[in-house]
Amino acid sequence: MRLGIDLGGTNIAVGLTDEKGTLLCRHSNPTGVGRAREEILSDICRTAVELCEKYGISTQEVESIGIGVPGSVNKAECKMVFGTNLGMNQVRFEEVFRPAFSCPVYIDNDANCAALGECYGGAGIGCDSMVMVTLGTGIGGGLVFHGRIFSGCGDVAGEIGHMVIQMDGEPCNCGKRGCWETYASASAAIRMVKQAMEEHPESLLHEVAKEQGKVGAINLFLARDRGDAVACELFDRYVRYLSIGVGNLISILQPERVIIGGGIVGQGEKLLAPLRELVYAELMMAEGKRPEILAATAGNDAGIIGAAMLDS
Amino acid sequence: MRLGIDLGGTNIAVGLTDEKGTLLCRHSNPTGVGRAREEILSDICRTAVELCEKYGISTQEVESIGIGVPGSVNKAECKMVFGTNLGMNQVRFEEVFRPAFSCPVYIDNDANCAALGECYGGAGIGCDSMVMVTLGTGIGGGLVFHGRIFSGCGDVAGEIGHMVIQMDGEPCNCGKRGCWETYASASAAIRMVKQAMEEHPESLLHEVAKEQGKVGAINLFLARDRGDAVACELFDRYVRYLSIGVGNLISILQPERVIIGGGIVGQGEKLLAPLRELVYAELMMAEGKRPEILAATAGNDAGIIGAAMLDS
Repeated sequence: MRLGIDLGGTNIAVGLTDEKGTLLCRHSNPTGVGRAREEILSDICRTAVELCEKYGISTQEVESIGIGVPGSVNKAECKMVFGTNLGMNQVRFEEVFRPAFSCPVYIDNDANCAALGECYGGAGIGCDSMVMVTLGTGIGGGLVFHGRIFSGCGDVAGEIGHMVIQMDGEPCNCGKRGCWETYASASAAIRMVKQAMEEHPESLLHEVAKEQGKVGAINLFLARDRGDAVACELFDRYVRYLSIGVGNLISILQPERVIIGGGIVGQGEKLLAPLRELVYAELMMAEGKRPEILAATAGNDAGIIGAAMLDS
Repeated sequence: MRLGIDLGGTNIAVGLTDEKGTLLCRHSNPTGVGRAREEILSDICRTAVELCEKYGISTQEVESIGIGVPGSVNKAECKMVFGTNLGMNQVRFEEVFRPAFSCPVYIDNDANCAALGECYGGAGIGCDSMVMVTLGTGIGGGLVFHGRIFSGCGDVAGEIGHMVIQMDGEPCNCGKRGCWETYASASAAIRMVKQAMEEHPESLLHEVAKEQGKVGAINLFLARDRGDAVACELFDRYVRYLSIGVGNLISILQPERVIIGGGIVGQGEKLLAPLRELVYAELMMAEGKRPEILAATAGNDAGIIGAAMLDS
């Protein structure tokens, strides 16, 4: 039995899985950010213990604990290095579980855990090499080779959003210019929609924004569905930006699957079909050798499953 | 004892190594491109047998044979799929060695073998993850993780030269635009030098070209050494192009080492020092976590050593 924890800003979500990463049960408590760090840490252990009780096993039956955290990590020391949002810099997680558990404890960042979760419980099941691409505020990444996270030499591999696709292009928060995420993240899509709305008062994007009550990346799809010319042009541009980075990952890594996650992927084939078309057209690869491009499917459980399967 | 073969357009170079990839002896015969394919294949086996005789071992003492070929491969079938330059499409190499050897036979392309050779006999010794970047007509790549080539799902990972760093940029032979190799290969450097010579008749690049008897990438360094302003500007631009791709590889993979190969790397620190400076400045990584950026050192033996260590 493996125990995985997805430590988020809102909830401490905990799950038990079998050796293959099948989720058996889950449980959660609020994180309560803002409280003393010792209180939160004690609650993390308590939530794990409560889950064992709920499932009717003793804590000694847990063979490994994995925790996914929103920050940078030092895997060898099982430490969250920077976790500023939670007020948890330099926390060693092994000690957190010692009051109740005696098994090994593993850590990784939440993006890597989500990728590993897709590998064991989502669109990556059964594949030997996958790259997870999460479209959000930025573009997060996770590389999973042979069922394990590839972390590189400093536990920070997978910063795919900061791959430069346009030298001297859009400025990025990281200080560089032309990073992929400044063109193809969900935030970039929203920025593009806002700019198009300013430039095209006639566009249906305005009507959609009114109906939705906000300007989101999804508005692009809704206006395009109604045949709005501005949205169609914008959509093609966005998918092209997305395809450049996906194509680069494939040129470099040729993974068996590229799995796209993030809210925008709820649009399914509306996004994926044109993305595949562009990527495949540029790769000129024999059909059998083409990496599959799929939507993430593990949803909210990905983080728990991936954490449970850390270092397996 | 392992046997490695570097099959090139000029020579069939063969070597014996120990289990750790230390080269014990080498031997070669001309490839004789243009001859019947059976003749060349028979010569490959003969060259391997001659090496064993030279070293005083029986062919039965060879535990594995690896061959690096200038073309695309199917590793599972030990096959060179396309080897047009040698007139050797669809050759199964296992059969080639059966007359004299009974050990397993492995295959990979020459770029991957060179990368693996650096890992076991060059600048990559002792490191857990490395990316080899070879600056030539294009930019070749090889990914070595945990002492093994990472091939991806279609045996074609490592096409790093075709990572796009400038959307809608320079046209590339592959059909795309803005590929890294159109900016940072040795050929790209030569193209830049030629263009600068046309635009700047006052540049010392002309004098250097006369002295060298040709326009090569190295002319850029020679004119820069003499303080030529055009060459200095061009050099900075070239190193910047190089740094974008190296930076992207680091963002994605965070390998322990990035190893740069190709004739231009004979310039050593003149190229590497400014490259490191640019890459590190953009990465904003703690010093201890920075991947090392080094020149390849295994030279002509890299291909043999890497071939010998295939699938080890």
